[in-house]
Amino acid sequence: MEKYWFTYEDIHSTIRDLAERIRQSGYDADAIVAIGSGGFIPARILRTYIKKPIFAVGIAYYDDENKPTDTPHKVQWVDEVERKLTGKRILLVDEVDDSRTTLEYCIRELLTHKPASVAVAVLHNKDKEKRGVIPPEVKLYLAGRELEDRWICYPWDALDIEEQNRQAHAAR
Amino acid sequence: MEKYWFTYEDIHSTIRDLAERIRQSGYDADAIVAIGSGGFIPARILRTYIKKPIFAVGIAYYDDENKPTDTPHKVQWVDEVERKLTGKRILLVDEVDDSRTTLEYCIRELLTHKPASVAVAVLHNKDKEKRGVIPPEVKLYLAGRELEDRWICYPWDALDIEEQNRQAHAAR
Repeated sequence: MEKYWFTYEDIHSTIRDLAERIRQSGYDADAIVAIGSGGFIPARILRTYIKKPIFAVGIAYYDDENKPTDTPHKVQWVDEVERKLTGKRILLVDEVDDSRTTLEYCIRELLTHKPASVAVAVLHNKDKEKRGVIPPEVKLYLAGRELEDRWICYPWDALDIEEQNRQAHAAR
Repeated sequence: MEKYWFTYEDIHSTIRDLAERIRQSGYDADAIVAIGSGGFIPARILRTYIKKPIFAVGIAYYDDENKPTDTPHKVQWVDEVERKLTGKRILLVDEVDDSRTTLEYCIRELLTHKPASVAVAVLHNKDKEKRGVIPPEVKLYLAGRELEDRWICYPWDALDIEEQNRQAHAAR
């Protein structure tokens, strides 16, 4: 099956457009919460356009013995979450909405800490059957691009960035 | 004064070379600690070459009323640091070693939690008088590139990524 290949410039431009759509929605975030490690780069680029502090949360699908787990669990969570995020308008950021499991897990964890509101911005959403749901409390859900259910090759995962760019340009 | 302009591809290649030098040093990290938000992108790229979990720490130079402070303080720190990083070989990552104040602060905070060792990898080091010091406990310090003391324009800070790339290519 054909894969998607993106350059960093593709990602940066998608985030710029996404930031503009967030602005147009009227959602005025107090803080960006990046789901690590996939959300780190999208969140950091987004901060150039939406100048808010970034908090990072880490989620894993493996246990302490490195064995796969069915459900996600927290690797690192926001310190003193109550003080930092309670009453705040949160913008949760990740690179891809795939099965939606990670997103649902993170949203539900954040909601327990009583933020003023939660919005979700993902770089890419895959058009596929989802195992997770976006809880109704979420005020806004935006995806930078809607993609088919194919493998996505992100530039930050490239061992050879020139080859990544060749593939991305060839796929146009 | 002339500025430095880098493309994402420049950054990615510098990190690839830096990862190779870390490998050659024999330093075998258990965990990457990214200093946010500047260290998020270098750390995430580094993880492609050094496949270890990333923990994020946030440092700020402004207080709760958004007023500048002379010394850095923790915005977000690693949850349950004792359990996660005690006895571990840490690789601390940031984008630039400028005055060295942030690095010294983070290293000293990490050392209080008794890691097995601390190494530091920065994308860029500026050749200038430093206000902070690298504590002698640090096993390894590597910079991807040594730069003069000029303003650095990073691609993730670009409002217009095409203009960033034009400037970076023009400066060669």
